[in-house]
Amino acid sequence: MPELRKDPVSNTWVVLAPERKRRPLFYKPTSEDALSPEDCPFCEGNEEMTPPEIYALRESPSEANKPGWRLRVVPNKYPALQVEGQLNRAGEGLYDKMNGIGAHEVVIETPSHTKGMEELDDGAAADILITYKRRILDLKKDIRFRYIQVFKNHGSMTIATIPHPHSQIVALPVVPPRIQEQLTQAKNHFNAKERCIFCDIIHHERNYQKRVLEENNDYIVISPYAPRVPFELTIYPKQHNASYEETPDSSLQLLAGLFKDVMGKINKALERPDYSIVLHNAPFTGECAHYFHWHIKVMPIIAGVSAFDLGTAVYINPYLPEEVIEILK
Amino acid sequence: MPELRKDPVSNTWVVLAPERKRRPLFYKPTSEDALSPEDCPFCEGNEEMTPPEIYALRESPSEANKPGWRLRVVPNKYPALQVEGQLNRAGEGLYDKMNGIGAHEVVIETPSHTKGMEELDDGAAADILITYKRRILDLKKDIRFRYIQVFKNHGSMTIATIPHPHSQIVALPVVPPRIQEQLTQAKNHFNAKERCIFCDIIHHERNYQKRVLEENNDYIVISPYAPRVPFELTIYPKQHNASYEETPDSSLQLLAGLFKDVMGKINKALERPDYSIVLHNAPFTGECAHYFHWHIKVMPIIAGVSAFDLGTAVYINPYLPEEVIEILK
Repeated sequence: MPELRKDPVSNTWVVLAPERKRRPLFYKPTSEDALSPEDCPFCEGNEEMTPPEIYALRESPSEANKPGWRLRVVPNKYPALQVEGQLNRAGEGLYDKMNGIGAHEVVIETPSHTKGMEELDDGAAADILITYKRRILDLKKDIRFRYIQVFKNHGSMTIATIPHPHSQIVALPVVPPRIQEQLTQAKNHFNAKERCIFCDIIHHERNYQKRVLEENNDYIVISPYAPRVPFELTIYPKQHNASYEETPDSSLQLLAGLFKDVMGKINKALERPDYSIVLHNAPFTGECAHYFHWHIKVMPIIAGVSAFDLGTAVYINPYLPEEVIEILK
Repeated sequence: MPELRKDPVSNTWVVLAPERKRRPLFYKPTSEDALSPEDCPFCEGNEEMTPPEIYALRESPSEANKPGWRLRVVPNKYPALQVEGQLNRAGEGLYDKMNGIGAHEVVIETPSHTKGMEELDDGAAADILITYKRRILDLKKDIRFRYIQVFKNHGSMTIATIPHPHSQIVALPVVPPRIQEQLTQAKNHFNAKERCIFCDIIHHERNYQKRVLEENNDYIVISPYAPRVPFELTIYPKQHNASYEETPDSSLQLLAGLFKDVMGKINKALERPDYSIVLHNAPFTGECAHYFHWHIKVMPIIAGVSAFDLGTAVYINPYLPEEVIEILK
């Protein structure tokens, strides 16, 4: 059973997940990723290599865990958290812990071993975004969970070990520190001004224009004022909305087109870099509906880990966001 | 001129340092690092390839910026921050910024292109630790600086681009968020209990023993209760001391022996992994002397970046600290 432990000095939760030890300990990147479609657990025909599916989209009625799907959601084979059991919180001397209750799912985005979202047709790309929504709505029913993190790692400089396009969904029994910090700042701003800080940022950036990559009817893509990594981009819905899962499917279809466009521009400018994507969403409480505003961060990974970032949480970035927009446009 | 910008939602400072763009944008790790001693700016005989030295240790009197040294400190050729100029703070609409005043130095630890600290003799290893102290004491005189970060990146999975053993020193005009968080927690603990939280951790771990790797007269090495990365270790001075630079040289000599031993154990267990090292030290204010306690974090880097960590600041780690101690011992 995994365990969550809190560091009493940094106030950070760590998930200790011995199950994940079965993954390779050292994943040293090779020039070309060696896993072929025949050995890939996410390729069509290899459905028995994953745990049984939780959700799938299929063209015509076909049997679960058999070929014929265009998207599958399966439990992670090496889960960081475990669905079964009751959530127990306890102290341990100076320390705090809880057992590792949660969910850890993999969204296999397409049967294709190599096609990124930007190479899919608009409908298939929208299916991925709508699947996130369906899974959040389903997981939200479980009162043990406080937050759901949707994310994606792509390429050998990230922790990803399988190159087949996939994203992940983790349901956590705690609100993560980075979200908690955003909530605190956003709440302070709202209390002082009766305005959402994210709406203010969107308004400011639409006026200034130099950090705006593009927008459509519902969404805007910004190179943020203080980006942690080079070419980091933030996608915001233009209408205030705290919870991704409350977005209508028709709007997620609009998002899919924009997303494909953004990834195409990044791939062109940076020659198909490795990247991470995270969805920042409201935790499961109605309280923040007025002051939180969901958004997606796209972060190309063009350098390894830095002790400076790890030690300080100050980030060194050689690219001004204004300059990034010029390059990407 | 670099610029510091603050993200209004995460409260994080980012250093935008266009100077560093001259470094390779994509540093894709190769199987063996290609840089030979002839082309290495940190090797003896190539002193003209670095900016003029700030500090050096030489066996016998020899000319600055010429061979004959056993350790050199030079300005970083691609500095994240710039020493010259006045610190200006300003608002920019919603946002806050300041110009990138600071210092960015490189400690070339040894003339050897390949020898890690653990392969140096005790005196040479102690020289490195004593040099950190000397440089902190010198930089501390500059009232524009609020914090000094000493750190080291080693290996191609980190951001390091030169394999020759070196560490770095960055003087910042802000207290970094990770240190600020530690200060807040430590202060709360002190206010409630009149005790240093780090001293409490040391006391707790010495009793429990299962997370203690080793100790000597002055220092203790702990596998922390909630480690962010596998095989993370923390080295604490056993006597309460907030500021590394107040440590007597004789004690740093004791630290050097222990450090060599720790790195030897990590190299043996993990087959010479890449790693990051950071010194967490008190910022430049006497206020925290009672409740802060300096320490060093050794963090092996055995996997790439993860969107989950980036998005949440919750860390997934498959190795329990109790188990790490068994493996390392």
